[in-house]
Amino acid sequence: MSAPDPRLSINQATIKYSNLEEALRVTAGAGIHAIGLWREPVNEVGLDVAARMLADSGLRFSTHCRGGFFTLPDGPQRRAALDDNRRAIEETATLAAAGADGSTAVLVLVAGGLPEGDRDLIGARERVRDAIGALAPDAKAAGVTLAIEPLHPMYASDRAVVSTLGQALDIASDFDAEVVGAAVDTFHIWWDPQVLEQIARAGREGRIATYQVCDWKTPLPADVLLGRHYMGDGVIDFASLTQAVVQTGYDRDIEVEIFNADIWADAPEHVVRRTAEAFTATVSPHLR
Amino acid sequence: MSAPDPRLSINQATIKYSNLEEALRVTAGAGIHAIGLWREPVNEVGLDVAARMLADSGLRFSTHCRGGFFTLPDGPQRRAALDDNRRAIEETATLAAAGADGSTAVLVLVAGGLPEGDRDLIGARERVRDAIGALAPDAKAAGVTLAIEPLHPMYASDRAVVSTLGQALDIASDFDAEVVGAAVDTFHIWWDPQVLEQIARAGREGRIATYQVCDWKTPLPADVLLGRHYMGDGVIDFASLTQAVVQTGYDRDIEVEIFNADIWADAPEHVVRRTAEAFTATVSPHLR
Repeated sequence: MSAPDPRLSINQATIKYSNLEEALRVTAGAGIHAIGLWREPVNEVGLDVAARMLADSGLRFSTHCRGGFFTLPDGPQRRAALDDNRRAIEETATLAAAGADGSTAVLVLVAGGLPEGDRDLIGARERVRDAIGALAPDAKAAGVTLAIEPLHPMYASDRAVVSTLGQALDIASDFDAEVVGAAVDTFHIWWDPQVLEQIARAGREGRIATYQVCDWKTPLPADVLLGRHYMGDGVIDFASLTQAVVQTGYDRDIEVEIFNADIWADAPEHVVRRTAEAFTATVSPHLR
Repeated sequence: MSAPDPRLSINQATIKYSNLEEALRVTAGAGIHAIGLWREPVNEVGLDVAARMLADSGLRFSTHCRGGFFTLPDGPQRRAALDDNRRAIEETATLAAAGADGSTAVLVLVAGGLPEGDRDLIGARERVRDAIGALAPDAKAAGVTLAIEPLHPMYASDRAVVSTLGQALDIASDFDAEVVGAAVDTFHIWWDPQVLEQIARAGREGRIATYQVCDWKTPLPADVLLGRHYMGDGVIDFASLTQAVVQTGYDRDIEVEIFNADIWADAPEHVVRRTAEAFTATVSPHLR
């Protein structure tokens, strides 16, 4: 196998059952240059230790996953969620500083769904905007970019009321581009009739905080959260989407984040190798 | 129980296992004034017999379900699909003429998914536009309105490449409004950040060919086609959506179309009664 693409980053969720030590070792061991981390495995060892482990790995740090979940109305739970997001911002800054040159301080935000018993989608979306407003000064002070991630509309009720890239950009437009951007994830937005124009807009507005790739295939599994696939195994056209992102001037790491029970059950060394091969076949040709 | 709302129409798919005779009898027997039919049970008895049965029932005819499935590239299969749509147009005209006063000749179109092995979503969407262009003269001659139905984006790959109301309206805009409109179905579009403005646009452009309601709830069932629910059992805000439709001046029948294995397993008399009650509770208050 040829060397992995130098812009490939493995999002740790792709090898979900690896702890931080294994995730770093397997990723670096495969000749990959970058990794996106999740909060739980980082906090399992503690932030300082995690930062040292990351530095020792020689890997770049591409994103921290994840903050958000702030659609609740005002009250102790919402305030606790905001405080937790502030900790996530600090983690992001610390890890980005510990990663190799070219690391980026990007915190991915998943908006959260409708609160139990609530049908006011517009109100929930407004609370997302308000929460980002509350966090923006902290992010700015820490040098962290908040990446609003639009999730596929099938998650709109129970996971993320931000459903399109255009909507994420509308929310982001209230804030400085270096503080609030959007996550462009093929799985979530490939179906959108406006996807190419919204990617171009995101580029013009300087808002592409991260580009993430994986594939869509049906039938969906019983747990629709786990319906992601290696690039090339589904129907997404990585050529047009990647070219659209490249044309904006986006030149940073590209993450692969796959939630899939079969892939999680596989050996992480094999998953990382397979991911690198899929990336080389489907994404790399469009990066020139 | 009070009398069903006079604008409620039972889409036959809600009582999927009823043949035409039973569907008409149960619907009329519940004091409901209108029905939307499906091609299979109509063709089971033959169009002439079906039209006579419909006339005898005294019910209005609100839509015929369904045409479409024309994303295939040119070839015998595509031509067969277009011919089949032409038959569906004739059926729609015949049934609308047989239904009670206030019947509407509306044929619902489901676009179809990506052809096997195809990743060119934009091309598939263009073929939908082309197919509607091929059918529009037939529809016009028959006095039938083709209702492009945007389906939820989770069906974009395997069932309908038309995913938003805005996209359906963009396609429809090439044609006369009385010939090509859109189906506004709450289940498919409730999540869309642009839904209220696109409903208003559909009204302005005279394109609301049918308004259909049912609810969204998670977790989705293993077969995500069957995740529809009685209004009120899920998270959709029927107030804002129905008010938006009413404000356009839409004053025709409103269909309930529910795909749900548990509801299908229930007695059709009970399903129809329960549907009428749910409609009165969630939709009727917003029709004044």
